[in-house]
Amino acid sequence: METEFSEAREGVVAPAGYRAGWAAAGIRGDGSDRADVGVLLSESPAALAAVFTSNDIVAAPVEQGRGILRSGRPVRGIVANSGNANACTGEAGRRDCTAMAREIALAVGGAPEEYLVASTGRIGRPLPMAAVGEGIRAAAAHPEASGEAGEGFARAILTSDTRTKTVTATVREAGEVLFRVGGTAKGAGMIEPGMATMLAFLTTDLAVPAPSLQEHLRAAVDGSFNRITVDGDMSTNDSVFLFANGAAGVGEGKGTAAALAEALAGCCQRLASMIVGDGERVEHRIELCVRGARSTETAEKVARSIAHSLLVKSSWYGEDPNWGRLLSAAGAARTGIRLEDLDLHYGEVPVVRAGCPLEENAEAWRREVARPDFRIILSLGQGEATFRMLASDLTPGYVDFNKSE
Amino acid sequence: METEFSEAREGVVAPAGYRAGWAAAGIRGDGSDRADVGVLLSESPAALAAVFTSNDIVAAPVEQGRGILRSGRPVRGIVANSGNANACTGEAGRRDCTAMAREIALAVGGAPEEYLVASTGRIGRPLPMAAVGEGIRAAAAHPEASGEAGEGFARAILTSDTRTKTVTATVREAGEVLFRVGGTAKGAGMIEPGMATMLAFLTTDLAVPAPSLQEHLRAAVDGSFNRITVDGDMSTNDSVFLFANGAAGVGEGKGTAAALAEALAGCCQRLASMIVGDGERVEHRIELCVRGARSTETAEKVARSIAHSLLVKSSWYGEDPNWGRLLSAAGAARTGIRLEDLDLHYGEVPVVRAGCPLEENAEAWRREVARPDFRIILSLGQGEATFRMLASDLTPGYVDFNKSE
Repeated sequence: METEFSEAREGVVAPAGYRAGWAAAGIRGDGSDRADVGVLLSESPAALAAVFTSNDIVAAPVEQGRGILRSGRPVRGIVANSGNANACTGEAGRRDCTAMAREIALAVGGAPEEYLVASTGRIGRPLPMAAVGEGIRAAAAHPEASGEAGEGFARAILTSDTRTKTVTATVREAGEVLFRVGGTAKGAGMIEPGMATMLAFLTTDLAVPAPSLQEHLRAAVDGSFNRITVDGDMSTNDSVFLFANGAAGVGEGKGTAAALAEALAGCCQRLASMIVGDGERVEHRIELCVRGARSTETAEKVARSIAHSLLVKSSWYGEDPNWGRLLSAAGAARTGIRLEDLDLHYGEVPVVRAGCPLEENAEAWRREVARPDFRIILSLGQGEATFRMLASDLTPGYVDFNKSE
Repeated sequence: METEFSEAREGVVAPAGYRAGWAAAGIRGDGSDRADVGVLLSESPAALAAVFTSNDIVAAPVEQGRGILRSGRPVRGIVANSGNANACTGEAGRRDCTAMAREIALAVGGAPEEYLVASTGRIGRPLPMAAVGEGIRAAAAHPEASGEAGEGFARAILTSDTRTKTVTATVREAGEVLFRVGGTAKGAGMIEPGMATMLAFLTTDLAVPAPSLQEHLRAAVDGSFNRITVDGDMSTNDSVFLFANGAAGVGEGKGTAAALAEALAGCCQRLASMIVGDGERVEHRIELCVRGARSTETAEKVARSIAHSLLVKSSWYGEDPNWGRLLSAAGAARTGIRLEDLDLHYGEVPVVRAGCPLEENAEAWRREVARPDFRIILSLGQGEATFRMLASDLTPGYVDFNKSE
């Protein structure tokens, strides 16, 4: 079996048996005609897997989605909106969320409990339900499996993102397509491990029972969306959904399970990387690899301490190869590292060896950190464990952009 | 007994038996004539208390200071420099640090082990020892107890601070001065609980044995420097020193112990507040109070999660009363809070009651968050515990300022 990835705009409708539609419902109330409602439908009931934010404060759609996931029942689709997160909206917010599911069920058939809802945008404002209802009916009127439909759905979920994010994995055996995985996501701000203000929608036409599908999704999320950070903020609405409708006529077996894991991991990693690259006013994307740790937990703590340091992030913005701030941030994780054990590389260039800077390489470092994408490898010299994550710089533009909503 | 606080420039030399001097040694190597070496001397050997950074990576002066503190022996003074942190400088850095203590001992008498060293500034560069030695000799040539000397010492330790920070507490009984506490500090960047890139120097002329002095200092630091944050970064050099030389002729007794605790707490809180107010490009200082928590630990976790949120800090900069981001950041601490239990006030103005926004107060909120200093009170509705801290906004200027060194 071989897996091929593409960023074609079909995304979620690339696998067989899915259709999507979108509409501009004016949810933002600012007179813009941006797409802000999307529907994703499976032609036959699909097994559901989902991972939600671990924030204590969750939006109404997350509460509702958790209930549907717990029921273990198949689903028919999802309705998503941008411009309003339906978070911190109390009882009215719960009612609005149920009404959105009812609206899509009325439009395309089935029960409200067979439809998930995903909302993203401003917190604490009531949804303009008349506009939302109209948007759902319009989006559901002519759902398609075209590239335009995949792109339209991808656009309808964007908030401060500057571009759509779509990915497709095609799994072939002896040249014949066995099954596909498709995905789309939005990110931009509040991007952080334990997920982010991010929504991701994944589909496959492989037939996979829900419990197994959930395991696959959890593993893929842990290796991708849980390893990115833009600003360290975790949202009330983060959700990743995965549908499996079996329309390819192939079931999960020994070979396909491994291929599904690979395809899902690849799709999630690609979407995660696009999210960091499109972070609010981000100018540099940094792959941070902490090696030689006593345990993965230690490596992760050190990596996150570096990736969250405002001084480090500011120096990445300034293309300043400030290894001193970086080591100080690593030490601030208080995992028991020792300066004399540390080796640091920017790309292939050795920067610090056994705690001492290699000043003769200074010009080469400077070139590395001037790239829009670069890699940092810190070896702790204490063991064998590794943790890798994607981080971004912090720019004055980020602060200006987020000073008000 | 009554305690009076002042921000007079005497600072560390306000208590009896202390003298200070300073010099411009050109440590930065940029041709500026900024004061960058300061010496603080006690006329008689003083008991020492100190609290150091908990970062795994510590600068040479911190290693050396820890050894002196462990010895429990009295000390004669301290030599401080700005412009170079003597951190990540290896064996040479340790030798330079010892040489600084030797230089001051040679200049004013006593053994090198009786002198502490404090360095702050850029990480990973060797100290220009010829200039440093000359600076120490100049600073130690004519130490004084004047306001000018206190101010000079306060100026010599500054890095990106824009102003000196000095404080004095005078404890009187029946109108007569019993003893004094004086202090000075520097902060500006890398300001964070578990301390900061901050140095603080405190003196008292009360006679207090070292073990008791250490307990007093620990309590005062926990209630002040450990409750401030500017950028969440913890440095390799953070140190707070306290000398007690007994020159007032009064010993620690029942009444004076309580008065010392009050004077120290007041001095440390005032210095901590000045540090946040003078944070790099900070425009707003926020007193954040989390109440009604199950435990102090829970309250602290929630408070720090809010105070570190880049989205919240950006909105403080924008004077945007974004309670949604604030509650989302509180939930991200994952302590098990529930939206419907939350009450939020900006100053005296109720913003959220039982999880619901009080939109009718929106104009009043907006006025609150436009102040340079304001207070936020979040009640979790789960218990009796409280945690208070001082935080700052995040400005585009901070990022620009720190993009390179």
